Amino acid sequence: MTQSAAIIGGGVIGGGWAARFALMGWDVRVFDPDPEAERKIAEVMANAARVLPMLYEAPMPVRGAITYVGTVAEAVAGADWIQESVPERLDIKHKVIAEIQAACPEGAVLASSTSGFKPSELQQGAARPGQIMVAHPFNPVYLLPLIELVPSAVSDATTLARAKDILIGLGMFPLHVRAEIDAHIADRFLEAVWREALWLVKDGIATTEEIDNAIRYGFGLRWAQMGLFETYRVAGGEAGMRHFMAQFGPCLQWPWTKLTDVPEFTDDLVDLIAGQSDAQSGALGIRDLERLRDNNLVAILRALKQQGAAAGKLILEHDATLRGPLGDGVPLVTVRRVVPVDWTDVNGHMNEGRYGQLFSDASEELMTHVGADRDYIAAGNSYFTAETSVKYLSETHAGEDITVTTRVMLGEGKKLRLWHEMCRAADDTVLATCDQFLLHVSLDTRRSCPPLPHVAEAVERLAAAHSEVDT
Amino acid sequence: MTQSAAIIGGGVIGGGWAARFALMGWDVRVFDPDPEAERKIAEVMANAARVLPMLYEAPMPVRGAITYVGTVAEAVAGADWIQESVPERLDIKHKVIAEIQAACPEGAVLASSTSGFKPSELQQGAARPGQIMVAHPFNPVYLLPLIELVPSAVSDATTLARAKDILIGLGMFPLHVRAEIDAHIADRFLEAVWREALWLVKDGIATTEEIDNAIRYGFGLRWAQMGLFETYRVAGGEAGMRHFMAQFGPCLQWPWTKLTDVPEFTDDLVDLIAGQSDAQSGALGIRDLERLRDNNLVAILRALKQQGAAAGKLILEHDATLRGPLGDGVPLVTVRRVVPVDWTDVNGHMNEGRYGQLFSDASEELMTHVGADRDYIAAGNSYFTAETSVKYLSETHAGEDITVTTRVMLGEGKKLRLWHEMCRAADDTVLATCDQFLLHVSLDTRRSCPPLPHVAEAVERLAAAHSEVDT
Repeated sequence: MTQSAAIIGGGVIGGGWAARFALMGWDVRVFDPDPEAERKIAEVMANAARVLPMLYEAPMPVRGAITYVGTVAEAVAGADWIQESVPERLDIKHKVIAEIQAACPEGAVLASSTSGFKPSELQQGAARPGQIMVAHPFNPVYLLPLIELVPSAVSDATTLARAKDILIGLGMFPLHVRAEIDAHIADRFLEAVWREALWLVKDGIATTEEIDNAIRYGFGLRWAQMGLFETYRVAGGEAGMRHFMAQFGPCLQWPWTKLTDVPEFTDDLVDLIAGQSDAQSGALGIRDLERLRDNNLVAILRALKQQGAAAGKLILEHDATLRGPLGDGVPLVTVRRVVPVDWTDVNGHMNEGRYGQLFSDASEELMTHVGADRDYIAAGNSYFTAETSVKYLSETHAGEDITVTTRVMLGEGKKLRLWHEMCRAADDTVLATCDQFLLHVSLDTRRSCPPLPHVAEAVERLAAAHSEVDT
Repeated sequence: MTQSAAIIGGGVIGGGWAARFALMGWDVRVFDPDPEAERKIAEVMANAARVLPMLYEAPMPVRGAITYVGTVAEAVAGADWIQESVPERLDIKHKVIAEIQAACPEGAVLASSTSGFKPSELQQGAARPGQIMVAHPFNPVYLLPLIELVPSAVSDATTLARAKDILIGLGMFPLHVRAEIDAHIADRFLEAVWREALWLVKDGIATTEEIDNAIRYGFGLRWAQMGLFETYRVAGGEAGMRHFMAQFGPCLQWPWTKLTDVPEFTDDLVDLIAGQSDAQSGALGIRDLERLRDNNLVAILRALKQQGAAAGKLILEHDATLRGPLGDGVPLVTVRRVVPVDWTDVNGHMNEGRYGQLFSDASEELMTHVGADRDYIAAGNSYFTAETSVKYLSETHAGEDITVTTRVMLGEGKKLRLWHEMCRAADDTVLATCDQFLLHVSLDTRRSCPPLPHVAEAVERLAAAHSEVDT
């Protein structure tokens, strides 16, 4: 049976919850007195519906309905999960929780998005405090998996366990926060960084952009995959976490700590942290962790490169400076590169589909070589691939140097036929071949047409040269 | 002419510099009195040589030589760049800088990896203070682009400009830190977070693993692509940065700030930050920024999914729960999904190579369906693709729902032939077709052989059923 969620309070956070639930197949009822709520939530839903399904190779569940209701009672009646995201004032939260509990099933999860209040504060005066907990999400709720799930001592254990299962079913990561503290866990870090950032801007040390660059070109990339302690464990190298702490510990005595109260750096604290780090990451040796870190960084950097964003934009620009013109050998060497880790499957073999990408890259290099470059395309002309036939002859692995050579087999009018061979550079083994047939098209009419004269001549010249030599 | 770098002090940081220079075509001379230096640097170089070239589609420069020399003078003679990474003690740094300047070219860049000292401190008593600056890298130096480039008031402007150009040529991002402060910029954040983390562990609120999860499943993903302020600008929504600050500002009054000295939250400070944020990101509207953020997050999450790491591991596991068995219709619907943003080119069209990946995914679904699943492969049997012929009929774009249907055209002995059609779900337009020929192989002998009986029967059954119906 379709499960149902009640969203009490819309906005960016409530809307994000609504979108996540609906896209995962839940029916959603929303109550928000803001007359703009429906428009705002629809905008969040449009964003979410565009991108959340992109995370999955599997088919998505049938989307649930989002309906807008006029009262809290209508929203929560029969709901399996109730998410409260009203403004951060305790008197408002208490009033809304009372309304919710007057109408909702006793067994429902009643979770608050609060970043500021502890669950025991929310539970004050509640009809059924055991039902209430904090489920603190992170924007955008429809993409980021983290939920800080914070019970108080009187929160019901069965309800908490069900909440965890439901969050996992929504594709989220419930981080069970075992102790109630102000700001839970993640916001304490955000707060610490925010304070430091305010000082840097106020004192004229750095602008907002410089600070963002200091984060996204550096430790932000590390934290996206390993967080803080595992990153430092790797940095500590062979000598391990204790060594790292011994190095970094004294920094706490440096001048800028005058701003803060710093915990005493005792042996007990070092043992506690090193012990927890062993439990967390000790199953892997330091070389394995380095390898995982580096693979993840390569994958993230290449993902950003493909988007032309952040650190990936830098690499894209740098990549362009490393390219030279193709030589004029026969055949043309169109690609010279290594197989990156994001091109391989779990067994380390290059994925079948990436062979096609490599041949596509090879033909793009050839296009540039004959003058069918970005400007040519921008002016409304291009070659489209009509057909490719790939023969897979041998396997290849991440890290191997490979080349692609390309011959123009036919270049007459709108027709272009290429023959690519992909080789292992180390021993010239042919790993795969590709017979590619392209048609020249006008991007205006979307119909085939002859190339412009300079491209036609270049193609014909290559076709003649490449046919003179035995393969 | 090949440029040359002198690395004074090896270890993880000096080794990372050596690797980055050598892989980018520089000759490198290393001086480090540690008898283990050569081994340690060789290990860093092995890591770097494996992964740095993976960032590039372009061919890498011809690798430079790394040589180990017995004196500082030998290392720095004729060098274009000298990188000092000796232990963080000012007396040692002064001594080494004096040795360097006694032998190095006057025009060389003399940069220190220090995280603890200001350039003016390093320059004390130097023969040519103008030559000296801080170039503070982040581990792993061979992958992370950030360099905090910090001159003092007497650092030479021409040398600084050349340093920036060289760093860009190495694929790095020189962040010009305009004011000398303790810990430069990034380490102030790292320090702030480290302090907060120590308190959380010490007080028993969270373990190292819980803290890492709070970072890598949440704000770490945001920071990898936008940093702090642009993330908050987006969070502020239509109302913008001032609105966000008005919301978040009061948090500074919350209890945990008792630990710290917090800047007064004046209108001037709000104006300063909002103005800088406008200058940084104001060219794009909030919907555009949301879209960029979401595209980047999808790309990063999918990159991590492909690696089976961090937040991507969660998605991989969740993905598995969304899959059901294929139906038994003719043809089989093997794929139902949307085109993700990391599959498209700059114009938003799905990249040619990804068509191949989609058909590869379709055949993998079929394999599972006939019993040639992970266990079957683990037991030493598999189908290998020998040949594919793809016809490209129409374009498709990020966000479109697509399906792949698959027919078994031939299933006899070791031979398997599949016919895939990729369609736009909205209107059933056929976008591409794929004729795929596979051979069953033994993974032990790497030779073709018949499938095990249960797979052979399933394949034959499908071949019979699929031949009965007109295409």
